[in-house]
Amino acid sequence: MLTDEQCARISVVLVRARNPNNIGAVARAMHGFGFTDLRLVNDYSVGLEKARSAIDASSILATAKEFSTVADAIADCHLVVGTTAVGKRKQEHTLYTLAECGASVRSRLETDRVALLFGSEKTGLSNDAMSHCNWLMTIPMHPTPGLRHASMNLGQAAAVCLYELVRHPDANPQQAKQEPMADAESLERVTSLLEQMMAAIGYDRHRPATADPAEVRRMVRRLDLNQSDARRWIGILRRLLWKLNE
Amino acid sequence: MLTDEQCARISVVLVRARNPNNIGAVARAMHGFGFTDLRLVNDYSVGLEKARSAIDASSILATAKEFSTVADAIADCHLVVGTTAVGKRKQEHTLYTLAECGASVRSRLETDRVALLFGSEKTGLSNDAMSHCNWLMTIPMHPTPGLRHASMNLGQAAAVCLYELVRHPDANPQQAKQEPMADAESLERVTSLLEQMMAAIGYDRHRPATADPAEVRRMVRRLDLNQSDARRWIGILRRLLWKLNE
Repeated sequence: MLTDEQCARISVVLVRARNPNNIGAVARAMHGFGFTDLRLVNDYSVGLEKARSAIDASSILATAKEFSTVADAIADCHLVVGTTAVGKRKQEHTLYTLAECGASVRSRLETDRVALLFGSEKTGLSNDAMSHCNWLMTIPMHPTPGLRHASMNLGQAAAVCLYELVRHPDANPQQAKQEPMADAESLERVTSLLEQMMAAIGYDRHRPATADPAEVRRMVRRLDLNQSDARRWIGILRRLLWKLNE
Repeated sequence: MLTDEQCARISVVLVRARNPNNIGAVARAMHGFGFTDLRLVNDYSVGLEKARSAIDASSILATAKEFSTVADAIADCHLVVGTTAVGKRKQEHTLYTLAECGASVRSRLETDRVALLFGSEKTGLSNDAMSHCNWLMTIPMHPTPGLRHASMNLGQAAAVCLYELVRHPDANPQQAKQEPMADAESLERVTSLLEQMMAAIGYDRHRPATADPAEVRRMVRRLDLNQSDARRWIGILRRLLWKLNE
C-alpha cells in the first residue's frame, strides 16, 4: 500500500469524459484505493451533479477541479502517464504495460506529483493529449482475432490502473490475521484416533493400504489443519470411538 | 498472460447479481482479459437481454449459464474462491489479499477448474455462499476513518480480480504436476456424509455450533482435499455410517 502522502501525489485526469456515471465510477475507485485528486479536462463544464451522487466518493467529486486544456490540468505534475489501447499509440512513445509502469510510478511518488491521463471511452486520448505524456501505458488485453481491440469502460480501466499502484504486497499495513496451524502433537493425536476408528469399523482389513499407519499420517498432514480445526476433529473422533465401542 | 486453456478453466460466478449493466460490465472485463465462462446464480432468471447489448461481450453473455444454487454452479470446480470486503468475512476462512491469491490461482490453472465467486453489490456473498469457498480473498481497500468500508461496483471488482490473474509478466505455464484436487461435487458428498455421521453419534446435539451444516461445509473446504483423498474419505465415512447404523 502507498502512504497517504504518496496517494495525494497522484492526480487522475479525465480528458473529455462526459458521462456522469463513468466519472462517478472513477471517483469511487479512487476513493476505494485512497486517492483524492480528480481533474477533468473539457471544453465546457460537464454536469457533475449526477456524478456527485456516486456512493462513497462525494468528497472526491466535490473537490474535483475542471480545466479547459490538458496543459493546465497537468501543470504542477512532474510525470505524466497516458493510458491507451495498444493499437492507438504513436510510435514516438515507448509503451509500457501497466505492471511495468506501476513500479516506476510508485518509485517516483516519494517526491514527485504524477498525473494519470484517461481519454474518453469512445476515442481514447487524442494525439494532442498524448503529446503531453512522458510515458504511455496499456492494460494488457486479450487479442481477439478479427475483432477490434477489446476495451473496458472508464470506471474499470481506472480501477485496474489504481489497483496496480496499491497492490504491492510489501508494506501492507493491514495483513489478514491467519489462524495458527496445528502443531505436530495434535496432528499425531488425530492420526492415532483415525487409526483406532478405522480398526473399529474394519476398514483396516477392508482397505489395508489406506489404513496403513504411515499412509494415515500422510493423509492427516495433507489436511493442513489449523489449531482449532485439529481440536474439533479430535473431539469428533473421540465421540465417534466412544459410540463405536458402546 | 495465461494461455487460452488456462483462461478457459476460470469460471466467473455471480451470485444474486441482478443489474444487467453490472452483469454486462463483468462480461466486458472477462472478454477484455480473455475469459469466457460466466455463470449466474439466482432464484429466478434475470433479464439478460439488456446485458446482452454490452459492447464486445455478446458471445460471453450468449453462453452464460444460469443456476439456482451455488452448489450447482460450482459442481465441476476444484477450487472455489470467494471475494469479500474485509469486514464481512467469517473468521473460519483465511483471508488472502488479491495479490497473494492470484499467484496461487494461476499455479492451479494447469489442471484445475477454478471458480471466482462475486456476491451482489449490496450485500456481498452470504454466509451460505461463502461456506462453499475454499479460500476468501479481498481487494485491498483504503480504510476511511469513520466511514463504512469502501467498495467498488461489481464490474470494477471483477476487472481488478481478472487483471491480477493476467498481469503477471512471466505467467509460468509449466508448473510442477500436482495431484488433481477434488471437485466441489465430491466435497459436497464428504460434507453430507460427515453431517450424517455427526447426527448418528449425537454430535449435532453435543456441539451444535460445529455440526451446523454451513460450518461443516466450511470445515471440509478447509481440508483442501485432493481427488483421491476425497474418494478415500467418502469410503471411510460410508463404511462408518454403515457400521453406526448396524
